Amino acid sequence: MSEKITIYDIAKKLNITAATVSRALNNNPKIKESTRELVLETAASMNYKQNKLALALKSGRSNNIGVIVPRIDSNFFASVIRGIEEELYPHGYQVIICQTHENPKRENENLYTLIDAQVDGILMSVTAVTNENDKAFHNVLEKNVPLIFFDRSKHINGVSSVTINDFKGGYIATKQLIDQGCKCIAHLSGDQSLEIFKNRFLGYKQALLDNGITFNEKYVIQSKSSVEAGKNAINILLELETPPDAIFSSSDFAALGAIEELRDRNINIPQEFCVAGFSNEPFTKFMELSITSVDQSPLEMGKMSARVFLEQVAKTDSIKIEKKVVLAPELHIRKSTSREK
Amino acid sequence: MSEKITIYDIAKKLNITAATVSRALNNNPKIKESTRELVLETAASMNYKQNKLALALKSGRSNNIGVIVPRIDSNFFASVIRGIEEELYPHGYQVIICQTHENPKRENENLYTLIDAQVDGILMSVTAVTNENDKAFHNVLEKNVPLIFFDRSKHINGVSSVTINDFKGGYIATKQLIDQGCKCIAHLSGDQSLEIFKNRFLGYKQALLDNGITFNEKYVIQSKSSVEAGKNAINILLELETPPDAIFSSSDFAALGAIEELRDRNINIPQEFCVAGFSNEPFTKFMELSITSVDQSPLEMGKMSARVFLEQVAKTDSIKIEKKVVLAPELHIRKSTSREK
Repeated sequence: MSEKITIYDIAKKLNITAATVSRALNNNPKIKESTRELVLETAASMNYKQNKLALALKSGRSNNIGVIVPRIDSNFFASVIRGIEEELYPHGYQVIICQTHENPKRENENLYTLIDAQVDGILMSVTAVTNENDKAFHNVLEKNVPLIFFDRSKHINGVSSVTINDFKGGYIATKQLIDQGCKCIAHLSGDQSLEIFKNRFLGYKQALLDNGITFNEKYVIQSKSSVEAGKNAINILLELETPPDAIFSSSDFAALGAIEELRDRNINIPQEFCVAGFSNEPFTKFMELSITSVDQSPLEMGKMSARVFLEQVAKTDSIKIEKKVVLAPELHIRKSTSREK
Repeated sequence: MSEKITIYDIAKKLNITAATVSRALNNNPKIKESTRELVLETAASMNYKQNKLALALKSGRSNNIGVIVPRIDSNFFASVIRGIEEELYPHGYQVIICQTHENPKRENENLYTLIDAQVDGILMSVTAVTNENDKAFHNVLEKNVPLIFFDRSKHINGVSSVTINDFKGGYIATKQLIDQGCKCIAHLSGDQSLEIFKNRFLGYKQALLDNGITFNEKYVIQSKSSVEAGKNAINILLELETPPDAIFSSSDFAALGAIEELRDRNINIPQEFCVAGFSNEPFTKFMELSITSVDQSPLEMGKMSARVFLEQVAKTDSIKIEKKVVLAPELHIRKSTSREK
């Protein structure tokens, strides 16, 4: 690679300080017009290219926003990102995306990568609730880079979040299964250290209690958000002495896996077994046996996160107001839980 | 935001030049040990944080790789990115992603954003073949940042690419429809300025000719890669005097839309009408009426693009070898084109 011409090279050639070169290039009024012209001419003759980022290092603004998500191959996260872009693009911001693949170490690296890329803000969904990335989060805050959580959040003082009411989401999905006459409702739960999954579980539990159904721990299977995990869960659940007659899954992907496994076993859905998912991924609607799912308004969540960011940077005072925006979930009832009466 | 401490502030305090401060911080051997210690102590006392990116500006390496795709909400692009990450992460590279939303202006902005973020390379799938972004592409090359195209490429001297044999993909999908007894095969084509779509179309056309079927221009509908576009295409095609009895769609999303519209019209698939798609998106497999589709080995495509990048940066000579890697497509035959004999 060819050597990059720096302001130090220009300074050396003109026998002036690098600071003077820098000020001249940045039109600092303290610099004499004749000096400015000399610097500009010399810079041009040396093929010096002023780097926008070098300017950002000085001005503290790059107009880039970093977004960190566990994965991009989920319609939910892709839609949140679209919402963020739709809101921020008219304000001149470019969005750059990193994914953690559900790995806290990658999350840590993503945080430093984005800070190094001089982003003006980080909007993210956390991967897991551990303390191991606390230093990385505080590094962001110390650099005065606004940090906003969406969907999956973590309690950090001064950090705003945009989430949905996951408790309610779990509640309404379970209630619909009860309304269909299901008596033994299992739950595929996600990582319980994450609030979203904990709250979906608590909503599920409350719906059972409110409707006189005893909560049975054996019906709760902690599973990943994957088709494979849903299949495995069915294999475990159908081995129970009293197998369930319905599942509320905290993930659409696991719900899909459950449905595939039930079909392979020739169990009739929804007549013998009802399945409801969470996230309203497009495939839930497109399947011939469409899947009931809880919609999380991802586009709105993205836009709202972006608005919270814009509000935060617009604030001229140094008082930080922690904002907690909670959106309402919406149940989309489809064939997988619609029994004929 | 609090003012950022710069090397100029340290230089001013110590009454030395910024260049001296910079050299001291970067352990330049020309600097006296006593000066170095003084600078380090002063920097620490002023809470100066050396920015990794500022170092990158000097060293020319950030260990970040930029990836630009038309959209992230397609399993194909998400999988290519996963392949890139799997290959580059063990080499210490972090991947940052931008999406163009099929908009050349956004593509242009993405290119400058990533260059400003000091990426060490850009791996991308172009959005459209226009000349309007030539300056942005040449800006990347002038900065000696390796540029590699995957899937959708554009001819630029010295730029390597990794694609699949789209002609063959179009050919084998169409041939399968012919083998099922379809006589009037329509084609939903994408933007014909992009080679991938042009080659799929040419493969389709060749398969017809090789099998004694006359090519009919009216059967070719240029459509976007969306469910809506597939529905609209069916509406146009069924209005023809001789409506087709099959579709080879260059997009799975459009194929899905076509299937939905055919179902709404109570047209039996595959007995009355066969539909084949392209990309092997996961939903094509998961649907009860699974969709025949051409697999593009996206994970392999991503890994291969990453390998081409690694080879390029490992080269010590300045001779650039343009590499054209072409992967083989694979047809996955499913229910949407499997007639009972």
